[in-house]
Amino acid sequence: MKAVLMKGFGGPEVLYIGEAPDPVPGEGELLVRVHATALNRADLLQRRGQYPPPPGASEVLGLEMAGEVVRVGPGCEGWQPGDKVFALLPGGGYAQYAVVPQGMAMRIPEGFSYEQAAAIPEVFLTAYLNLFWLGGLREGQTVLVHAGASGVGTAAIQLIREAGATSIVTAGSSEKIQRCLELGAKAGWNYHDGSFLPFVREQTGGEGVHIILDFVGAPYFDDNIRALRRDGRLIVIGTMGGTDVQHFNLGYLLANRLQVIGTALRSRSVADKIGLTCDFWAFAEGRFADGRMKPVIDTVFDWEDVVEAHRYMEANRNVGKIVLRVTHD
Amino acid sequence: MKAVLMKGFGGPEVLYIGEAPDPVPGEGELLVRVHATALNRADLLQRRGQYPPPPGASEVLGLEMAGEVVRVGPGCEGWQPGDKVFALLPGGGYAQYAVVPQGMAMRIPEGFSYEQAAAIPEVFLTAYLNLFWLGGLREGQTVLVHAGASGVGTAAIQLIREAGATSIVTAGSSEKIQRCLELGAKAGWNYHDGSFLPFVREQTGGEGVHIILDFVGAPYFDDNIRALRRDGRLIVIGTMGGTDVQHFNLGYLLANRLQVIGTALRSRSVADKIGLTCDFWAFAEGRFADGRMKPVIDTVFDWEDVVEAHRYMEANRNVGKIVLRVTHD
Repeated sequence: MKAVLMKGFGGPEVLYIGEAPDPVPGEGELLVRVHATALNRADLLQRRGQYPPPPGASEVLGLEMAGEVVRVGPGCEGWQPGDKVFALLPGGGYAQYAVVPQGMAMRIPEGFSYEQAAAIPEVFLTAYLNLFWLGGLREGQTVLVHAGASGVGTAAIQLIREAGATSIVTAGSSEKIQRCLELGAKAGWNYHDGSFLPFVREQTGGEGVHIILDFVGAPYFDDNIRALRRDGRLIVIGTMGGTDVQHFNLGYLLANRLQVIGTALRSRSVADKIGLTCDFWAFAEGRFADGRMKPVIDTVFDWEDVVEAHRYMEANRNVGKIVLRVTHD
Repeated sequence: MKAVLMKGFGGPEVLYIGEAPDPVPGEGELLVRVHATALNRADLLQRRGQYPPPPGASEVLGLEMAGEVVRVGPGCEGWQPGDKVFALLPGGGYAQYAVVPQGMAMRIPEGFSYEQAAAIPEVFLTAYLNLFWLGGLREGQTVLVHAGASGVGTAAIQLIREAGATSIVTAGSSEKIQRCLELGAKAGWNYHDGSFLPFVREQTGGEGVHIILDFVGAPYFDDNIRALRRDGRLIVIGTMGGTDVQHFNLGYLLANRLQVIGTALRSRSVADKIGLTCDFWAFAEGRFADGRMKPVIDTVFDWEDVVEAHRYMEANRNVGKIVLRVTHD
């Protein structure tokens, strides 16, 4: 089969389409002919050699895909060739074929294209994991979503809205903030205008938020801690701005019963991912089917243009997902 | 009624027994004639003026008591005068009478003295809260309990054992460690012998522990973080050694999906405390009744000797609880 390969590690230009061995479905796995995959920030790190795939995962980039089942491994139940599915992957999505444990496959809702389906798994499952499993999100709570216009951000805003909770966001332009408001955010703050802390206090009547989803790390740490209300949870999904916090007051943490939670989806066990997929799909299937929730797609590239797609993500201008259409000519 | 009062804030010598107004049970509350209460470290802080009681709580010291119901407030069900009860209190335990919401009262098991019952609430509910509610303790896991011979430590060791999990402890003397082993700890480390980190690694085959209960704070922070296994939780119950952490690597937190959780019992809502009491007593009642679990009492003082009792706790030599017998002559 064809797959996106790398001439060593480096910039987008190391990517090219070449020949790779066909994957073979094992016990309980489905072989899927991939029609669409999507980009994630982790792909950029992996391309630069900074994020090796977990043991046993494909070396090929790509953490999600949508396609049709072409072969069913031994021990699978309820699946057959021709079923249209989409799923999270531990790697190997930028390819014509991928294998996935049957418990991680979701059926593509009626009327959804492969491109739309491929834009769902990574960002929605990440947002679901962090909001519900780790954040314990409940109706009536308020969540601060940093990078609100990102893939995970746009998924989180919709999940928060559907949970009967409130989101406020930060983003880097008024256009991005506008997009977040359209998706259901209550208010947004342009981080070029200074610290978000006064904004959070104003939006919450001085109380602070119940949950923060953060991708920035050390530079935001102190303001994040102070933006939490009692029993609040800071969920650190990324450290794009740096990892080293210079000062952390445990007395404040204790007095306010705060939690600081480090999180990652990719390194979790298959059992965890199956459980997460089940929980998420029980919450989301009906809401996607009737149009209340939708994948937010910025651009669809042909996978022949994968170099350009990576450059586009690095320029940081997208709102929502960048999708690759995978062809089989 | 008589109660332990304070001549200003300061050392143990500010404590004396004087006259205080009788408490009056409100809607859903029980009036209890107190026969025993017990000391907590929070009492020492409050006596020094460093830990003001939460709004609405009694100014009198004492976070737990055992006694008999003498009056039942309006709206109480299932209680009557003469019932022997023990409970957590938001304050006011060092007194001849106390009021408690009916949902926070537990019935004293057959054969238990008031002194034994008074030694249970604060340390067992603190340990239960942090191990089960916040730590998510499950069978087969391993917990590092700092200050293993303390009140909370000796309660935690028993709860961990009864949950089918393993505890390892730190303490300041071989006698204290010996006591922890008798209660069910697998191994102990004398902190005078240096960092506990190599000990934890050796005891867990290099894996680290699932949960840490910490009272020390900043000086232990870095070793605590490194003593956790993936998905591990550091639960900060106290900061006796200091609050200011100088360096905290969020990248390590994220890569290992760690959680740092600040916790306090006293400041929680009455609803939380009722829920916690229910959960704890469902787990513990049978185990106390058949002798599998027991309150660990170091010394019982007459409450006339409250000054001496406080001095004894400050000397830090106790294993388990220091109880005050409250008299009504």
